[in-house]
Amino acid sequence: MRAVDVIQRKRDGRELTDDEISFFVSGYTRGAIPDYQASALAMAVFFKGMTPSETVALTRAMMETGEVLDLSDLPGPKVDKHSTGGVGDKTSLILAPLAAACGVFVPMISGRGLGHTGGTLDKLESIPGFRVGLSLDEFRAALRKARLGLIGQTPEIAPADRKLYALRDVTSTVESRPLIAASIMSKKMAEGIDALVLDVKTGDGAFMKSFEDSKALAQAMVEIGRGMGKKVAALITDMDQPLGRAVGNALEIAESVETLKGRGPRDLEDLSVELAAWMLSLAGVTPSMEAARAKVRDALRSGAGLAKLREVIELQGGDPTVCDDPSRLPAAREKVDLRAESGGRVARIACRAVGHAAMLLGAGRETVDSRIDPAVGLMLHKKVGDPVEAGEPLLTLHVNDRQRLDESLGLLKGAIRVEREAAAPGPLVRAVLD
Amino acid sequence: MRAVDVIQRKRDGRELTDDEISFFVSGYTRGAIPDYQASALAMAVFFKGMTPSETVALTRAMMETGEVLDLSDLPGPKVDKHSTGGVGDKTSLILAPLAAACGVFVPMISGRGLGHTGGTLDKLESIPGFRVGLSLDEFRAALRKARLGLIGQTPEIAPADRKLYALRDVTSTVESRPLIAASIMSKKMAEGIDALVLDVKTGDGAFMKSFEDSKALAQAMVEIGRGMGKKVAALITDMDQPLGRAVGNALEIAESVETLKGRGPRDLEDLSVELAAWMLSLAGVTPSMEAARAKVRDALRSGAGLAKLREVIELQGGDPTVCDDPSRLPAAREKVDLRAESGGRVARIACRAVGHAAMLLGAGRETVDSRIDPAVGLMLHKKVGDPVEAGEPLLTLHVNDRQRLDESLGLLKGAIRVEREAAAPGPLVRAVLD
Repeated sequence: MRAVDVIQRKRDGRELTDDEISFFVSGYTRGAIPDYQASALAMAVFFKGMTPSETVALTRAMMETGEVLDLSDLPGPKVDKHSTGGVGDKTSLILAPLAAACGVFVPMISGRGLGHTGGTLDKLESIPGFRVGLSLDEFRAALRKARLGLIGQTPEIAPADRKLYALRDVTSTVESRPLIAASIMSKKMAEGIDALVLDVKTGDGAFMKSFEDSKALAQAMVEIGRGMGKKVAALITDMDQPLGRAVGNALEIAESVETLKGRGPRDLEDLSVELAAWMLSLAGVTPSMEAARAKVRDALRSGAGLAKLREVIELQGGDPTVCDDPSRLPAAREKVDLRAESGGRVARIACRAVGHAAMLLGAGRETVDSRIDPAVGLMLHKKVGDPVEAGEPLLTLHVNDRQRLDESLGLLKGAIRVEREAAAPGPLVRAVLD
Repeated sequence: MRAVDVIQRKRDGRELTDDEISFFVSGYTRGAIPDYQASALAMAVFFKGMTPSETVALTRAMMETGEVLDLSDLPGPKVDKHSTGGVGDKTSLILAPLAAACGVFVPMISGRGLGHTGGTLDKLESIPGFRVGLSLDEFRAALRKARLGLIGQTPEIAPADRKLYALRDVTSTVESRPLIAASIMSKKMAEGIDALVLDVKTGDGAFMKSFEDSKALAQAMVEIGRGMGKKVAALITDMDQPLGRAVGNALEIAESVETLKGRGPRDLEDLSVELAAWMLSLAGVTPSMEAARAKVRDALRSGAGLAKLREVIELQGGDPTVCDDPSRLPAAREKVDLRAESGGRVARIACRAVGHAAMLLGAGRETVDSRIDPAVGLMLHKKVGDPVEAGEPLLTLHVNDRQRLDESLGLLKGAIRVEREAAAPGPLVRAVLD
């Protein structure tokens, strides 16, 4: 078999065999197939797409270049959730403890933020002492003890994906649905899970802006997961405005803790509960979604979710007292309000711009090498549909470095539109693929 | 400017600017842009094509990575011919001396054969002592003295093309019309010529099998040449059967000499005269194509063309007596006839298979590293439309190494079809773009 022939077959629109895909992916990962052939294949896939069976084969081949966790010694179902990323999206920090408190194992391997989107790892690292870099043995021990572990991508998991993603990033081949779906799923399928809930964001702040694109990506990932014998559901959820009120790492930890105390923003609580309920339901620990929702709400009300978060923070070397005293989290030196110029109702909060504005303050990464300031970010006081009076603060910036403050404020001024009348925001969950 | 953005613009179907193309080509050639970005761009061009103005910019950028000959000190028009390659296509060896004898300068830079097609350089090297590797200074001296020089691609000419072609070859991006056209024209436009005649082959033995594809390639090359201020015409000519009777390097030299003596096969003589007449006509040395044809026929009849071939062979270190005594050319040890199994007329000679059969004997290269045996090949005794009796030889193989003789014979048996009746072959020149 020759790499050039595999490229040609894809280029000419033919379906690649499992063997061809596995030959190419394993050869590329160990360096037997050079970058220039992989980028040519990626561009051919961009134009010609992949069938569901090709996409499953690609995911499996990428997964098999690395370690696949075997958690079968843990007594109970293992379930994870994955989000395609958004602004203020901190549901993982809430639903993972809730689901673990409800009896499932949650072996969660998360990523970092880039551009306007945040990352669970960055948020966790704003907790003093918290170690996301557990070894796989430590991860296993945390899971056994707390039914929950929260770690970052390790070099052992799907190395093909790391190598291929870096190549796609510099060859304009990122925006290919099968490649995106396989990239995400190759890492998730290596987690040793039985079930996976996908939160596919849609709207201005999402990777996929249109509902149709989001749905197609969700469909592709569900097909892959099922093709690999897992239980999978996908929720397509709103990212036309930030989720909750906090955008920024420590701010989002504090908001997650508040939410686990029952005092969080409604949209954040609702989505976290819904996703956690899907985790229980797929895992089969509750007979229906009704029962699953009730069980999650119980864990929220009883404080079992918060206790689980405290437990995992302590297990992973962090300071669990942040759950009691948010002032132990890093705080910015200065707060700057952005006030409404006129009264009315908030008609729109351009989500991507808000994420970008937080990034400019240091809450996110402009490039993969940027350093994050855990303390900075912003708190929204108003969300879409809320009434507002002229002069009232729309949001508060938490600032350490004023260097890009004006740029950030300029973005935010353009991002929030107040009008005389405004419709309430649409439903948080736009569609479910199950 | 970033290479990744140029790739994305092409991927998204937008027209690249001259600056973007020149940035990419010059960066790639000096190693500032890596192979994996160039192959991604090539694949995007495969799918999205290039406008005429992009193709001109690409050709110019590739040409400008190397030396562009300035032959303005030579007193008279400089004209070349380029063929897209075929089987038995030795017109260069005939028309170049004829055109030079008629008063134009012919600075001809040729290529080698690969696969089923032959190359002018390989044919020239079957002349004992002939040096195709002149320095550019020696080339210039030959031109000044004989108005004719016959050399190979030098490393100074369009290095971008050599690098890019090698990359396309291993990334399934060869079959892209703008890339093919720019590859050919970047080298030709570096020759310091005023005019160029293109012989675009069409049919079974051609690189482009269909007339439509051949015409589109011809059109693209004519547009490039004109876009760069040159006079260009393209003839689309038949390659459904081999040209002339000889296929193989020394055999083709001998046939070329015979043709310059007025004793060659009709199709070969006619096409050589026609192409040479186009060279004179484009160069403006004759007032009409009628006059040009008459002038070339005169040079053929008078022996001026043969004298010019003798002169250039001597100038380039070869043995000019091959023009008088073909036995001075390398000869194969053994001749093997392929005889007709039944009588009738030759209905078809599958051209690609004949080229491939000659390659198997050693007349061509299976890969770029293969060694050529100048003596071997085959002579066709019958061409399409010719009557043949059962048992009569259809062709004679000239063999040195019997190892692949059976395979070669098997191919040839399948390649030549004798039927009760057969139409005469179509016209040699299928179309002219001028």
